[in-house]
Amino acid sequence: MLEESLRAAKAAHHQLAAAAAAERNHLLLAMERLLGDCQDQILAANQGDLMEAQQCGLDAPRLARLALSPAKLEGLAEGLRTVRQLPDPLGQGRRWTLPNGLILEQVRVPLGVIGLIYESRPGVTVEAVSLALKSGNSILLRGGREAQRSNEALAELWLRALDDAGLPRAAVQLLTDPDRNLARQMMHLRGLDLLIPRGGPSLIRTVVEEATVPVVETGVGNCHLYIDAHADISMALAILLDGKVGNPSVCNALETVLIHRDVLEAVLPAAAELLGAYGVVWHGDDSVQAWVEDAVPATEDDWNEEYLGLHMAARVVDSLDDALEHIARYGSGHSESIVTNDYTVGQRFLAAVDAAVVYWNASTRFSDGHQFGFGAEVGISTQKLHARGPMGLDALTTMKTLALGSGQTRDI
Amino acid sequence: MLEESLRAAKAAHHQLAAAAAAERNHLLLAMERLLGDCQDQILAANQGDLMEAQQCGLDAPRLARLALSPAKLEGLAEGLRTVRQLPDPLGQGRRWTLPNGLILEQVRVPLGVIGLIYESRPGVTVEAVSLALKSGNSILLRGGREAQRSNEALAELWLRALDDAGLPRAAVQLLTDPDRNLARQMMHLRGLDLLIPRGGPSLIRTVVEEATVPVVETGVGNCHLYIDAHADISMALAILLDGKVGNPSVCNALETVLIHRDVLEAVLPAAAELLGAYGVVWHGDDSVQAWVEDAVPATEDDWNEEYLGLHMAARVVDSLDDALEHIARYGSGHSESIVTNDYTVGQRFLAAVDAAVVYWNASTRFSDGHQFGFGAEVGISTQKLHARGPMGLDALTTMKTLALGSGQTRDI
Repeated sequence: MLEESLRAAKAAHHQLAAAAAAERNHLLLAMERLLGDCQDQILAANQGDLMEAQQCGLDAPRLARLALSPAKLEGLAEGLRTVRQLPDPLGQGRRWTLPNGLILEQVRVPLGVIGLIYESRPGVTVEAVSLALKSGNSILLRGGREAQRSNEALAELWLRALDDAGLPRAAVQLLTDPDRNLARQMMHLRGLDLLIPRGGPSLIRTVVEEATVPVVETGVGNCHLYIDAHADISMALAILLDGKVGNPSVCNALETVLIHRDVLEAVLPAAAELLGAYGVVWHGDDSVQAWVEDAVPATEDDWNEEYLGLHMAARVVDSLDDALEHIARYGSGHSESIVTNDYTVGQRFLAAVDAAVVYWNASTRFSDGHQFGFGAEVGISTQKLHARGPMGLDALTTMKTLALGSGQTRDI
Repeated sequence: MLEESLRAAKAAHHQLAAAAAAERNHLLLAMERLLGDCQDQILAANQGDLMEAQQCGLDAPRLARLALSPAKLEGLAEGLRTVRQLPDPLGQGRRWTLPNGLILEQVRVPLGVIGLIYESRPGVTVEAVSLALKSGNSILLRGGREAQRSNEALAELWLRALDDAGLPRAAVQLLTDPDRNLARQMMHLRGLDLLIPRGGPSLIRTVVEEATVPVVETGVGNCHLYIDAHADISMALAILLDGKVGNPSVCNALETVLIHRDVLEAVLPAAAELLGAYGVVWHGDDSVQAWVEDAVPATEDDWNEEYLGLHMAARVVDSLDDALEHIARYGSGHSESIVTNDYTVGQRFLAAVDAAVVYWNASTRFSDGHQFGFGAEVGISTQKLHARGPMGLDALTTMKTLALGSGQTRDI
């Protein structure tokens, strides 16, 4: 059954890869129009999901992730427009000739068939699919049960868009999961070119550890802000506030702040007041507890944890080196930020921190495909191989070398 | 112990990454000179390995892989020269500015610490190391026991070259393996950025299946030649001969030839005579057996097997589609070749075959870092993610995004 889907998806991918960029862009344009034309149907389907989710007692953050709105749909349409207007990722490459006349041409080609396991957010059914199709891939979707009606409505629009563009329907398949075993089957689906898990830490860990197909690890963000001795304090406070309370449930939110001892007094009372207004709970070392009323003692677990909520771990450090050491030890390689006006310190931080995105005087909240100008993202890779940071079109492609000869042989 | 090596290697990698390209190139130049100056010592050490290997009854192909010679050393020196003269892979990247003024800069950075598990060939101790160091990485080497003296002599030269360049010795570490458990320990060495296995299929399979650190799969090459109905027959025969007998023990050698029924009579008797002179055993379907005396019946195993020796699997096909289907089913994604003068058929083959390198009227034997002009190779990747085909400098790097702000925040 799943093998059948894969076979059909492979064949569809070959058609997409052979299609002109204009055809793949036409497909995205058709989808963009359908999103506008069918807004009522999509919202009605989403309303059905939301009602059931409320009855099942889904918590507020998950309800928020599940909910669509006219504004969110307009955002998705705008993303489709951006992706459509980006250059074709396929076919670019370099060409060189060997001394014997053999012409080598490295071209960018689609990966083939992408699998996506995701939860809650129905917008993924638009975003990730748009990137997969523009880059000539087919995509097999395993969405969350709570978003089923929304995902079905959106997938149905993709089928209409594929029809409109004269491209095969098997390129987008929202799979059904009658025996709740689909995710595991996808992890071992020989021939699947890439499997991307998008969701909570336990889903991601399971997929990374168990899958025998190629996986890109996404999303775990234990992000730090280091407030240096030479920081602009009001800038640091604004970045801290944005990072912690702007949207605490996402992977680019701040989890730990490291504060240089020299600015402790300037930073902590003000920060405690600012974050306190949002109900943030502080977990700190002794020095932090001395300045922040109600701060609870931080343990090793606090440095390791991605709270994804209104908790702030805080530690006082005596130097840039101490901050770098803390980040190297506990960071998840996602996004890290420093606030400083000291050029040498800033440059050292940028060079030394080993993460997908390293900020100097800015909020970690910009680590996002939309913000980066990619139109959408398939996820944010926290690994170093293949793709790192927000994954756009290029992350769904690979290189192939074409060798054009006239009978060249090597040894005989 | 191994953790200690890793920590030292990480620190050394930071120094290499911070070093100017000229310093890393100076290191390669020093090694190139040492290879020439110390030729006698290296060959003496190699002679020791060879004598012991002969006493242990190592087979001829492995002895050939183990042996160094003045000519081989000159080849290694030339590779060092090529790698040195290639552009610095670090720091290149694009830079763009978001509407809010945040400057994003994608830069190419080293992966960090590379682990290499390899067998026999001591030349790897020069080649892979040169690529790792030029791209700012440290490297932990676990060579084959049979090449121990040769590897020690070459690693010792790297230490002298590192001294000469004022770079830290911990960047190149030839590890000892007293309890023969080192390879397995490396597979689970948390913090190792990439592990590359180079050797026989069983080594590669073990590493790919067991490792919990990032791995790039290399080397399995079940390569095909498709001789089309519109092939230039003498060209096809030359490419077949080169692919099969030029060096049968390597991954870019041919394993299976697919012949269009229309040229069966023109190809097979001549091919049988040519390859027969080298003692090649044919494994074929009924049609092949009808034309090739002494051909043994081919089974499913023959289509799957990488012989790495003087065996030739052969099958007659009725169309390009049949050939493509066979390759899609049995190919290992390494190198595939077609001989045809039909433009449409050639283009279809290039587009449809899903492999690292796809040849049109040329031998698969060119899939090699030296041949490609990379100066060396760390291995030939048969996977699609991260790196594909001969792995040069870029395959040992990753991207990092630097975000330079002036206090930008997103939501608050």
